[in-house]
Amino acid sequence: MSAGPATIRQPFFLKENPPVSDDQSRLDLFIDRMVSQRACLDFAIAETAAMTGPVFELGLGNGRTYHHMRQRISGRPIHVFERKMASHPDSTPPDEMLILGDVRETLPASLDRFGPSASLIHADLGGHNLEKNDAFARLISPLVEPLLATGGLMVSSDRMYFDTLTELPVPEGAVEGRCFVYRR
Amino acid sequence: MSAGPATIRQPFFLKENPPVSDDQSRLDLFIDRMVSQRACLDFAIAETAAMTGPVFELGLGNGRTYHHMRQRISGRPIHVFERKMASHPDSTPPDEMLILGDVRETLPASLDRFGPSASLIHADLGGHNLEKNDAFARLISPLVEPLLATGGLMVSSDRMYFDTLTELPVPEGAVEGRCFVYRR
Ligand SMILES: C[S@@+](CC[C@H](N)C(=O)[O-])C[C@H]1O[C@@H](n2cnc3c(N)ncnc32)[C@H](O)[C@@H]1O
Ligand code: NI
Ligand code: NI
Repeated sequence: MSAGPATIRQPFFLKENPPVSDDQSRLDLFIDRMVSQRACLDFAIAETAAMTGPVFELGLGNGRTYHHMRQRISGRPIHVFERKMASHPDSTPPDEMLILGDVRETLPASLDRFGPSASLIHADLGGHNLEKNDAFARLISPLVEPLLATGGLMVSSDRMYFDTLTELPVPEGAVEGRCFVYRR
Repeated sequence: MSAGPATIRQPFFLKENPPVSDDQSRLDLFIDRMVSQRACLDFAIAETAAMTGPVFELGLGNGRTYHHMRQRISGRPIHVFERKMASHPDSTPPDEMLILGDVRETLPASLDRFGPSASLIHADLGGHNLEKNDAFARLISPLVEPLLATGGLMVSSDRMYFDTLTELPVPEGAVEGRCFVYRR
């Protein structure tokens, strides 16, 4: 980060997490993040394949990870939590699988509806500000935690703050710190 | 593409180009595209390292590839062509390196300004519609072609239509059809 306006208040790595080395570009970081997300998801899908509880996708966004999960997961319903729909037409869940609203409200409501039954929860709710992402991860950790079934896995782009879940090492192909995996 | 609204008029792969295999998700395709873009850029930067002519980035977007190029290229000015600025603060070129406007106008104007001097031209101008991208690639190919210096390379996310440039095989690490490399 020598050239350009790199010394401004919020360096790019505050979003994508600190670069592994100084000569990583934003493109490198972004690729690491996407590759790690896929590796963690594939690992978690395989680990929970024998479970029948629902899968929760927190944050639909463009819908790429939802598209991936829908293709790789069979026999388990995938419920999508999103505040504001902006997904690709091919990656838009059917209405009845969409839980529209702020997760700060829809997660507690889902505990009433589903109980501790989720086999897999994936969260990619972060935005451009790592401090905000971290604060939000702290806020929703206790709302996510009770939804997981025993043996269920949680995959997150941000570090979570759980009392009773165990953090697992990231699977092969994932870069440490770019994705986090937890098991109940 | 079995589940969900996959049989609508415009399947997802019209943007990202046809999937390599049927069980590729949009996430897989997107990763392939980014990884191929980086591999082609790194190859082209290395191949043209001894040249001193300017580098042109056509389509700044978020600025990730510009950030990568700025980090990997030294001793060559990088001019950025963009219609509408929306880049990350860390990946925004200084004003004097920005050529603002539609490339259909700014490319011909740049031929007057720079002549056939570019050592490297990277284009990632495409949007969500492959047919439109292809039509646009046909339209700008003759505007790009005369800007390259002899020995200069052009890297594009869309197939280009050049009369005098040679298409090179994609370098190691890139997926065929996700990125294109041409040499004058
Ligand atoms: C896919 S984005 C580029 C992404 C970039 N490679 C990155 O890594 O962030 C495409 C960009 O091309 C620009 N663009 C598309 N058509 C254009 C045109 N006719 N003239 C100038 N810019 C154009 C768009 O405004 C958009 O910012
Ligand atoms: Ni950012
Ligand atoms: Ni699309």
